Amino acid sequence: MSKGTVVLAYSGGLDTSCILVWLKEQGYDVVTFLANIGQDEDFEAARKKAESLGAKKVFIEDLRTEFVEDFIWPSVQANAVYEDRYLMGTAIARPCIARRQVEIALNEGAQFLSHGATGKGNDQIRFELTCYALYPNVKIIAPWRIPEFYNRFWGRKDLMEYAQKHGIPVPVTPKAPWSMDANLMHISYESGILENPKSHAPADMYLMTKNPEDSPNDPDVLELEFKKGVPVKVMNVKDGKSKDTPLEIFSYLNEIGGKHGVGRIDIVENRFIGMKSRGIYETPGGTVLLKAHLDIETFTMDKEVRRIKQGLGNRFSELVYNGFWYSPECEFVRHCIAKSQENVEGKVQLSVYKGQVYILGRESPKSLYNEELVSMDVQGDYDPCDASGFIKINAVRLREHNRLHGFSGTKQ
Amino acid sequence: MSKGTVVLAYSGGLDTSCILVWLKEQGYDVVTFLANIGQDEDFEAARKKAESLGAKKVFIEDLRTEFVEDFIWPSVQANAVYEDRYLMGTAIARPCIARRQVEIALNEGAQFLSHGATGKGNDQIRFELTCYALYPNVKIIAPWRIPEFYNRFWGRKDLMEYAQKHGIPVPVTPKAPWSMDANLMHISYESGILENPKSHAPADMYLMTKNPEDSPNDPDVLELEFKKGVPVKVMNVKDGKSKDTPLEIFSYLNEIGGKHGVGRIDIVENRFIGMKSRGIYETPGGTVLLKAHLDIETFTMDKEVRRIKQGLGNRFSELVYNGFWYSPECEFVRHCIAKSQENVEGKVQLSVYKGQVYILGRESPKSLYNEELVSMDVQGDYDPCDASGFIKINAVRLREHNRLHGFSGTKQ
Amino acid sequence: MSKGTVVLAYSGGLDTSCILVWLKEQGYDVVTFLANIGQDEDFEAARKKAESLGAKKVFIEDLRTEFVEDFIWPSVQANAVYEDRYLMGTAIARPCIARRQVEIALNEGAQFLSHGATGKGNDQIRFELTCYALYPNVKIIAPWRIPEFYNRFWGRKDLMEYAQKHGIPVPVTPKAPWSMDANLMHISYESGILENPKSHAPADMYLMTKNPEDSPNDPDVLELEFKKGVPVKVMNVKDGKSKDTPLEIFSYLNEIGGKHGVGRIDIVENRFIGMKSRGIYETPGGTVLLKAHLDIETFTMDKEVRRIKQGLGNRFSELVYNGFWYSPECEFVRHCIAKSQENVEGKVQLSVYKGQVYILGRESPKSLYNEELVSMDVQGDYDPCDASGFIKINAVRLREHNRLHGFSGTKQ
Amino acid sequence: MSKGTVVLAYSGGLDTSCILVWLKEQGYDVVTFLANIGQDEDFEAARKKAESLGAKKVFIEDLRTEFVEDFIWPSVQANAVYEDRYLMGTAIARPCIARRQVEIALNEGAQFLSHGATGKGNDQIRFELTCYALYPNVKIIAPWRIPEFYNRFWGRKDLMEYAQKHGIPVPVTPKAPWSMDANLMHISYESGILENPKSHAPADMYLMTKNPEDSPNDPDVLELEFKKGVPVKVMNVKDGKSKDTPLEIFSYLNEIGGKHGVGRIDIVENRFIGMKSRGIYETPGGTVLLKAHLDIETFTMDKEVRRIKQGLGNRFSELVYNGFWYSPECEFVRHCIAKSQENVEGKVQLSVYKGQVYILGRESPKSLYNEELVSMDVQGDYDPCDASGFIKINAVRLREHNRLHGFSGTKQ
Repeated sequence: MSKGTVVLAYSGGLDTSCILVWLKEQGYDVVTFLANIGQDEDFEAARKKAESLGAKKVFIEDLRTEFVEDFIWPSVQANAVYEDRYLMGTAIARPCIARRQVEIALNEGAQFLSHGATGKGNDQIRFELTCYALYPNVKIIAPWRIPEFYNRFWGRKDLMEYAQKHGIPVPVTPKAPWSMDANLMHISYESGILENPKSHAPADMYLMTKNPEDSPNDPDVLELEFKKGVPVKVMNVKDGKSKDTPLEIFSYLNEIGGKHGVGRIDIVENRFIGMKSRGIYETPGGTVLLKAHLDIETFTMDKEVRRIKQGLGNRFSELVYNGFWYSPECEFVRHCIAKSQENVEGKVQLSVYKGQVYILGRESPKSLYNEELVSMDVQGDYDPCDASGFIKINAVRLREHNRLHGFSGTKQ
Repeated sequence: MSKGTVVLAYSGGLDTSCILVWLKEQGYDVVTFLANIGQDEDFEAARKKAESLGAKKVFIEDLRTEFVEDFIWPSVQANAVYEDRYLMGTAIARPCIARRQVEIALNEGAQFLSHGATGKGNDQIRFELTCYALYPNVKIIAPWRIPEFYNRFWGRKDLMEYAQKHGIPVPVTPKAPWSMDANLMHISYESGILENPKSHAPADMYLMTKNPEDSPNDPDVLELEFKKGVPVKVMNVKDGKSKDTPLEIFSYLNEIGGKHGVGRIDIVENRFIGMKSRGIYETPGGTVLLKAHLDIETFTMDKEVRRIKQGLGNRFSELVYNGFWYSPECEFVRHCIAKSQENVEGKVQLSVYKGQVYILGRESPKSLYNEELVSMDVQGDYDPCDASGFIKINAVRLREHNRLHGFSGTKQ
Repeated sequence: MSKGTVVLAYSGGLDTSCILVWLKEQGYDVVTFLANIGQDEDFEAARKKAESLGAKKVFIEDLRTEFVEDFIWPSVQANAVYEDRYLMGTAIARPCIARRQVEIALNEGAQFLSHGATGKGNDQIRFELTCYALYPNVKIIAPWRIPEFYNRFWGRKDLMEYAQKHGIPVPVTPKAPWSMDANLMHISYESGILENPKSHAPADMYLMTKNPEDSPNDPDVLELEFKKGVPVKVMNVKDGKSKDTPLEIFSYLNEIGGKHGVGRIDIVENRFIGMKSRGIYETPGGTVLLKAHLDIETFTMDKEVRRIKQGLGNRFSELVYNGFWYSPECEFVRHCIAKSQENVEGKVQLSVYKGQVYILGRESPKSLYNEELVSMDVQGDYDPCDASGFIKINAVRLREHNRLHGFSGTKQ
Repeated sequence: MSKGTVVLAYSGGLDTSCILVWLKEQGYDVVTFLANIGQDEDFEAARKKAESLGAKKVFIEDLRTEFVEDFIWPSVQANAVYEDRYLMGTAIARPCIARRQVEIALNEGAQFLSHGATGKGNDQIRFELTCYALYPNVKIIAPWRIPEFYNRFWGRKDLMEYAQKHGIPVPVTPKAPWSMDANLMHISYESGILENPKSHAPADMYLMTKNPEDSPNDPDVLELEFKKGVPVKVMNVKDGKSKDTPLEIFSYLNEIGGKHGVGRIDIVENRFIGMKSRGIYETPGGTVLLKAHLDIETFTMDKEVRRIKQGLGNRFSELVYNGFWYSPECEFVRHCIAKSQENVEGKVQLSVYKGQVYILGRESPKSLYNEELVSMDVQGDYDPCDASGFIKINAVRLREHNRLHGFSGTKQ
């Protein structure tokens, strides 16, 4: 008798194929789910593989549009960056995938969810917190944290043997000496030879961006149009080519950014579980968007609103990195950030060249920029004498402090 | 009879030359002060000019080393960036200059300080807050905020006429259609034709960095060594050239960064006085350092210490931008940040190419990175089962929330 | 010929009566405006006085309900407290009054607004920032900052003489040796003999609260019902008396709080202009509400949402204290805080006795409190083993830190 | 053969006595440790009990002075309060006790630590994080999280039976219908009949404070003297009695605070593990100190330093509540807070009466309060005209916002 139904996040690779078979061995009915979030994959081959390995049902779904609209766009509004550098391409994909997986489980009456994430990483947390948040009574099966599983499959060799024994097709090409995770937003590389933080990444590792040294000698110039803090149109100024749906816009930014080698970083980051890990990321379109959004946001948003909003954006980034996309606090923060974006509207011109994005200019019907007010040549509605009082009052406190304590500023 | 002595921040240019003469006209004895903080200037010509215009005393001083050690280094420790992009090359130069100007005033028994900053900008504030903090009883004369002065000198033509009348040498080359401020850390460009936020900056405007399109086709690879969060050595990996004093290190980073077109930004920023202004900056060495410091800091600092420290760093940036370098709170924040840097030590390798800085690897005797702990291949002192409990407990709250309110995550 | 029309915030007292006459002397038409925000005042006498002194038009308006609904309620939602203690009864009244004053000015076609606030205080700022925000082209006349005025009226004696000369009724009772500001929310006392921060406040100074030593020996027990973070009903548990409109609820809380001597504080606070001042406040109803709201909020709101919301609440308090109620950032913060209050709903029981408020219990249909989950006696849906993993993972970072640096915790 | 030595945090009560015997049953040598942190306890009886139950070694140590100096004083400097109300008497005691327990374990060569904290609470976390931080390789035995233990001892009846069978003295008085934790700083009450958040706490529950209704009708007036943010002397103004060592000062504040019923709160709080729990606390001396420290701190500390410091204090409170006293970030925060306290010095007079603390006045040689500057009667070194410019410049942004967006402030 079946122990019940488990919906397995299935990639088609060796690991999750073995997990599929192993779960069946343990007495579960296995439904597989493979999300298309923009990774380069032979989805039909994966379907056949899952079926041939005994999956009760196979779901393969294109989530690319909702990935862009529901996950990338809010991150753009937030200027979401973890620890000052990482744009979180993986972190925002997990809740997108897990959300659909929960829906399938609910529809299929499955009590169990399973995945192939390892026990030291962030992804297990992001995946499972989403599942618990959306399906509180679910039971999670995480084989890489179950001693009977991980003690049996100590290394890749054990998986290969198991695969051969159970008719699981064994990969013919050797595994890369690192692991990677790819989606529409980015590719991440970690582990293996990259674990030594001192060693340089191989030049041929990158799949999504050209090596800047090999990228074109001519920049592309883009005009990005924003409404409510998200792009509604991108236009290539040279050839007039333009895109205006979320998926097309983002894909086009990936294309241009990738062509010019934009968005590569090599960092050591702090995982939620408290260890430092080295990760290398390429996020071409996301990097272009971050720069453009920063520009139009500062152009149109009040200074003090922006200060508060940036604090919320930092909080958003931590929450998302740690797996709390579906938490009350992250929903609250997203609501507040979205509110702040109501007037973030206008066009940004930028050039993309040799790994870099250069902002060239911007315009907006909603800008708080007042050319006359700021001008050095005309006075506008501004009395310079006011600045004297402003400075004097700001100095009251500083002078009082000096009166009592002196200052270490001047050398004697 | 003299109204007293005024120490004037003197640049040698048309504006402050006219101010010098005007102050004398008003009945003051004028002492001029010109700081060498790395700008490209004919200091001897400026001395002669000041003397010929009747300065009672002329001070020209090389502050470059203290600018690097006392102002740039703390900013590096803080990862100081204003509004996510501006590295504040001007903001940190003002207190450096004003500090010395106050010392001169105290030594010379001058009751007045004067400067040529305009009435709409940040610099007047940065300058004067430093003066009031260090010399609370000082009187400030800011001609561009005095109606008798600014109504008389409405435009450049008025200054020219005044100059001719008073024997002030008139510049023979036409003024650039923008204003700029240069020092060791950066050059800023604003005003004039740049006031239209949509118009692109002219390609030939930049003086400190090569246009990336014209920069070398070969990257330079540097190794930067840090102690207590500041660089103590830079080495060019290709030719073995190295520098190890603060001023030499920073100048070399400027040279390499400038050669490869690193550190250009075009932004609209929010001035302290509440108006938006468009500024273009090039900060070659500072940009290299920011990237390298971010890397070594995350590598060596505890995650949660860093979160708190980054909050302080953001506060530091706002304070410095607004002119509060010499304030009790900024001194407090600098103390805390310096404390956080005690173990920020190690070497970062990076390449500089076509406007971009790429981190290649890092090593440190003080790193909290534990290759065994994080490894995918060995378990280290880590039990993956613990992660299950960690996730379950983190989910307690999320599940309770769902129990009561449900979640908007799943679509029906 | 008239210089134009000025709307003067008129209190009926000596100062603003003199200002009224002085403004007329200066050539303005003067419209007076007196807001009833709950202070104890003979409004009809004030009307007659203004008319007799030559006011072109006299507005006296009851703003009590909008003061409670539009200003006190959002402050309750925010748990608004400045510098950990001050509930800001004056700070929230200023924008309420100034808002109406602006409306009158716009309706009357007045280009000028005037008030009697002093040049060292916060109120001038709160008043004027509201005016500039709502009526950007307004001109403000602040006599206590105009040398011709303040040099003429150096002390109270000068005002008295001026009054006598111009037929302004002179107060017959001697002025209290401190100044006060009263409204529905609080009375503040400052200046005069209170300026010495060491001297104790006289026991007979307080007008809104009983001295706790003289208050009843029996507590009152109230039940406060909240919806969306604001009270919708208060019931006295002993006598069953209840109130359910905003103004009645708040007035009743003042009555009960005042009767039991609740809400007195004696503090030194930091004014926006950077000086420290000593203030004594009594805020009976507001103090009861703060305690009750804190209780129901923590009971019903997710922990992490509340952390973020409290940060916004602190920001709100600073903004309001400094006079930025009508600023884009304060509007933004209010929106976010209101969003957080959607489920802050339920009943709190509390007793009020001898200056103190004691929370006794609470209940809510929206509570995230789960008695079974937290129980020591039943397990609920909770596996204690999970806590081991939770702790171990939280310790990963601490152990790594010890590994590298050791800890100063243990003594040798 | 012994499995090794375990140091057990032993209270002398039924639970930890059973754990002692059970650990021996499991094959461990058991060393017991009982800390005197001010709770009311028969320490000698506990020693004999532990010895009679087979403890290999019994440690009973007076940690009261180090509890005050190393844990309560830093909390006073931080104004440490969790979720706006809880003074964390339990949270700061755990690391104090665990620190000594680790030292004993290291001295005794024990590889194991054990405690009787439950699996749903905060204390297990606070205890264990301290142990892991100070003794990274320690193994923790938490019986209430071990299924063999907690399934065997399902209720108190099971413990009683086990006790009788193993010669453990059984308590003769019935257990109170709640649990409590007492130390020098506070007593907490929770669980049992208190788990219903609506039910009122019994009046006779409190052991450390008088019921305010039964407290004296005469206030006590104290003068508290601070240096570097901690009290160095307390004097009773009426009888001249004074104390000047940390333990005596704090004990005396407990005595006076307790006599007048100060420091009772009834709250629902958020535990680190994500559940809400109801707790009732009485913290007499701590509450007096919090109020006095807030007063002298605001009196002597620069406004903006204090803003930053309060942010750090909030962070400190969260860290301590969650058990991270011995973490790199909490050490960092303590360092920064201590730095901020350098000039927090002076005397505060206050009265204590019927559950409330009233600040009466304060003085300090380090105060930034400037009576002349703030005076309404003299001008001091202050020009009121400056305020006009200050306000106008602060309004620039607000007027620009109105120019573009209008404001919702005025009703139409």
